[in-house]
Amino acid sequence: MSNIQRYDLNARMSRVVIHGDVVYLSGITPKDTSGDIAAQTRDILQTIDGYLEQAGTSKSRLLTAQIWLRDIDRDFEGMNQVWESWVDKENVPTRATCEARLAAPDILVEIIVTAAL
Amino acid sequence: MSNIQRYDLNARMSRVVIHGDVVYLSGITPKDTSGDIAAQTRDILQTIDGYLEQAGTSKSRLLTAQIWLRDIDRDFEGMNQVWESWVDKENVPTRATCEARLAAPDILVEIIVTAAL
Amino acid sequence: MSNIQRYDLNARMSRVVIHGDVVYLSGITPKDTSGDIAAQTRDILQTIDGYLEQAGTSKSRLLTAQIWLRDIDRDFEGMNQVWESWVDKENVPTRATCEARLAAPDILVEIIVTAAL
Repeated sequence: MSNIQRYDLNARMSRVVIHGDVVYLSGITPKDTSGDIAAQTRDILQTIDGYLEQAGTSKSRLLTAQIWLRDIDRDFEGMNQVWESWVDKENVPTRATCEARLAAPDILVEIIVTAAL
Repeated sequence: MSNIQRYDLNARMSRVVIHGDVVYLSGITPKDTSGDIAAQTRDILQTIDGYLEQAGTSKSRLLTAQIWLRDIDRDFEGMNQVWESWVDKENVPTRATCEARLAAPDILVEIIVTAAL
Repeated sequence: MSNIQRYDLNARMSRVVIHGDVVYLSGITPKDTSGDIAAQTRDILQTIDGYLEQAGTSKSRLLTAQIWLRDIDRDFEGMNQVWESWVDKENVPTRATCEARLAAPDILVEIIVTAAL
């Protein structure tokens, strides 16, 4: 039976699950939801950096990303600007982005990533 | 070439695919769509338990979950209550939840999980 | 540290990432967005065939698919007809389909797949 490590658990989810040499992160939302799309995206990516470091990897090892935006027409470009300045240009993950209403109305963006160890 | 096992195939999808030591399930919808969010969530989780058992694993080996709700404002808490009473508290998966219209109007929730063998 | 291969990179994403014996594709949208749901679905699946071939695999090795439709009530059946004629009937992936607004209003469908090498 293969080994599974889980970090930062609550009653609903683990924020990080490691299995084999793959790291799965929960959908990450902003800690501070008062900002605009740029601020919220930066907030999320900072959280992701922290979880990846905790798992022993980094954004240069990202495999996949799924990005959910509350208002894709308004916020697609603003999210992309922050995203493009954050990613490791030589090592970008696969990505898919769509519009979706999220758990609270002030959450403008949620990002789900996986990475390799 | 690595081995792939598939269970419960129809013309569109396999309900279960096993590759390496990872089990992928299709998005599971309720068998009975007449109930409220609690009933539909319980229905889905029972189906998931069955598929995980068929694959030789269980909910304590879940890696990830993605949950789609037709009405997230109305049904987020109701889904969460059933979810929290179902999961293995020591072994919760990563999770992401958003609102999405699904294949039929009476489907209130759909859940996609992966698990380790 | 496990090896990662990336193909067809731009500033935001890689279209293909290979890690271990799993191939991840970005969400694929139609090259030509002037057509109806059947034309757009065929267009996407042709692109997916090309990326899978480039990665050294094929649709008979698909593990998972996630399908996003801009109008699920109108286009679910049209997408399914093209999908069912494309998949390898003996080797269908797991699948989940929902409605989602996508990056541009004329994109009717986006498909995210993973496959085994």
